[in-house]
Amino acid sequence: MPTISQKGHDMPASPIRKLVPYAEQATENGKHIYYLNIGQPDIKTPEVALNAVKQNDVEILSYSRSEGSETYRKKLAQYFGKHDIKVSHNDIIVTTGASEALLFLFSSIMDPNDEVIISEPFYANYIAFSTASGVKVVPAICDIDDNFALPPIDTFEKLITPKTKAILICNPGNPTGYLYSKEEIQQLAALAIKHDLFLVADEVYREFVYDGNTHYSIMQVEGIDQHAVIIDSVSKRYSMCGARVGCLVSKNKTLMQTVLKFAQARLSPPTYAQIASEAALDTPQSYFDDVIEEYVDRRDTLIAELKKIDGIKVAVPQGAFYCIAELPIKNADDFAQWLLEHFDIDGETVMVAPANGFYSTPGVGLNQIRIAYVLNKKSLVKAVNILKEALKVYPN
Amino acid sequence: MPTISQKGHDMPASPIRKLVPYAEQATENGKHIYYLNIGQPDIKTPEVALNAVKQNDVEILSYSRSEGSETYRKKLAQYFGKHDIKVSHNDIIVTTGASEALLFLFSSIMDPNDEVIISEPFYANYIAFSTASGVKVVPAICDIDDNFALPPIDTFEKLITPKTKAILICNPGNPTGYLYSKEEIQQLAALAIKHDLFLVADEVYREFVYDGNTHYSIMQVEGIDQHAVIIDSVSKRYSMCGARVGCLVSKNKTLMQTVLKFAQARLSPPTYAQIASEAALDTPQSYFDDVIEEYVDRRDTLIAELKKIDGIKVAVPQGAFYCIAELPIKNADDFAQWLLEHFDIDGETVMVAPANGFYSTPGVGLNQIRIAYVLNKKSLVKAVNILKEALKVYPN
Ligand SMILES: Cc1ncc(COP(=O)(O)O)c(C=O)c1O
Ligand SMILES: Cc1ncc(COP(=O)(O)O)c(C=O)c1O
Repeated sequence: MPTISQKGHDMPASPIRKLVPYAEQATENGKHIYYLNIGQPDIKTPEVALNAVKQNDVEILSYSRSEGSETYRKKLAQYFGKHDIKVSHNDIIVTTGASEALLFLFSSIMDPNDEVIISEPFYANYIAFSTASGVKVVPAICDIDDNFALPPIDTFEKLITPKTKAILICNPGNPTGYLYSKEEIQQLAALAIKHDLFLVADEVYREFVYDGNTHYSIMQVEGIDQHAVIIDSVSKRYSMCGARVGCLVSKNKTLMQTVLKFAQARLSPPTYAQIASEAALDTPQSYFDDVIEEYVDRRDTLIAELKKIDGIKVAVPQGAFYCIAELPIKNADDFAQWLLEHFDIDGETVMVAPANGFYSTPGVGLNQIRIAYVLNKKSLVKAVNILKEALKVYPN
Repeated sequence: MPTISQKGHDMPASPIRKLVPYAEQATENGKHIYYLNIGQPDIKTPEVALNAVKQNDVEILSYSRSEGSETYRKKLAQYFGKHDIKVSHNDIIVTTGASEALLFLFSSIMDPNDEVIISEPFYANYIAFSTASGVKVVPAICDIDDNFALPPIDTFEKLITPKTKAILICNPGNPTGYLYSKEEIQQLAALAIKHDLFLVADEVYREFVYDGNTHYSIMQVEGIDQHAVIIDSVSKRYSMCGARVGCLVSKNKTLMQTVLKFAQARLSPPTYAQIASEAALDTPQSYFDDVIEEYVDRRDTLIAELKKIDGIKVAVPQGAFYCIAELPIKNADDFAQWLLEHFDIDGETVMVAPANGFYSTPGVGLNQIRIAYVLNKKSLVKAVNILKEALKVYPN
């Protein structure tokens, strides 16, 4: 048998998908599952985006430019402008989801054995992209007892070595829901400039900010131009995960020329999805107001319900649509699987994401789960109740 | 300034896109350009595919499964069955174009410094994907005087080292238009089995086969199951390059499980494009008959016109829609640029792809160009005439 690569062996299984076989079994056995594990919102995609695709007049479905269609990038630059992020369309390369933007970035700035510092817990696929690029993840551990705030900046600084090429944050955070303050962003920016590192912010949840807070982007920091890279996506903003359109934004020309070479190698981002994404930029503000109101409502419900569970600890999210909960159990992996295989209330059970997949540090987060509040309130109440009852009888 | 990666430095510029700045200049100066450089057909996408997207009833544009939608993969397995390639939907992972399938494959079977033997000249982005993966390309050089046939199999065998992980061919070939015979495929298969290597065939031009020949796929070879990998795409088959849908096909379960991990990391292939691709499978045979007739006609015209040029050598393609021509010049790069910058007939000029980007061997193919016959006959005649007149006055 021909052999697969070491890299292939090392690739982590997706923490939100590895339980899928048990879930399939459960549904085959007639169980209804509340999916709290995936970041796939149940929110409708804006009509304006859907209609643009239905009314498209493409006759030859051609490659677009590798950096993305020019009209889309120009409108996107305006969108960023409204968020006080001053960029031109030449500072934007459209990618096949934020996923591809991350992959291009990792390849463009890091060689095998280089290091990237990431505040932990983090979006699990950062490990996957690092493994694919042979890059080492150096975690800056954030604590549930601090609501996952940034650790003191000198803790961060101590992690920098000659191999460090970048600092990566997700703001607001998946899986924590943490929203970075202006001061934290400025501290990180100063550190990146001091040590000549890229500061990368995954801002795919930019719009999902609650309680009157505002999002402060790394690109709003003065003097950061050569160091800042924003990773962005239409997936969550417009509930358009299936479009597969994201982008990479930077004013560093050398970086952008390099990223473009990777973009050219894969030819172009998807054409229909760019039509949808360009139209989505006309989504009325009322859409976002409604969505934010809905998520705040869900979050409040979720947190209130979770707090009724004995021995639980939760970090209250100020952004995105996830939260981390620490459970009175030893191993969330086993618990999540047991929920699917051996537990139900009136034929209903819950699927959660064990949080250890969001940590690179071995042994950390073993008793934590990530909950995505992408279901309506009624379902959330039911789902948390199932969790509560399950914990009472779970043979720990 | 933070630094970019060595890999980023090493990434080749796309040979078919590096002349774009000169082309933009030329069009700004009012010149009309015949684009013979890109594999973007002018053929209409099948109505059945376009209509499926126009009539879609998606309300939440969700992630599909990472391996691609199940209904699409099931229909795709039937399509392969009709081509005597016996696979189930579980042997197929849908990717964002053949490009992504190649990238996943390289990552899944090769680590940095591993080697892949590729018959040369080859699709230029094979070098890009190799560079991105840190993999070494070992060329098996094919000769224009042999019409780019496979070199003797023992020449191939001599290239195998302990680092070799795979043999990659493109059948029919881009940029050569070469169609492998059943015997050649069987020889390669035997070699792959003997040395326990993957045999990878990029078959994105499967349908584009002329002169009564038939395409013989590596998966038709008995006993090749664990070694064979097909790379496929809807881009050329249905003139749907902008869809960004391809797939990777293999019966090797370990390989497929590994590829799936890379697929999960980027979440899913594009949803609208999968709707289009699934519908495209219902394209009537008459569509292909017309397209093949058109390409044969174009090829014959192109070759006949090219042969009128003094000192030219061309390989007659039996498949795909490219051909390589050797010109009586020293450097095709300079010539291609000069055509855009300094030459025109009545305000018209030609853009060709210098062929050296399709070779990894330094210094080979310097006087060759690749011509894509993706224009109608009248344009092809005009374009070749421009080439002919240009060569008369080109200050070599
Ligand atoms: C933080 C974060 N970054 C990136 C992504 C990937 O997004 P995309 O769908 O644009 O590839 C996700 C998806 O869940 C995410 O949560
Ligand atoms: C031989 C070959 N393989 C792969 C590709 C990439 O195709 P896709 O558009 O499916 O990524 C091309 C595109 O020109 C090609 O010619």
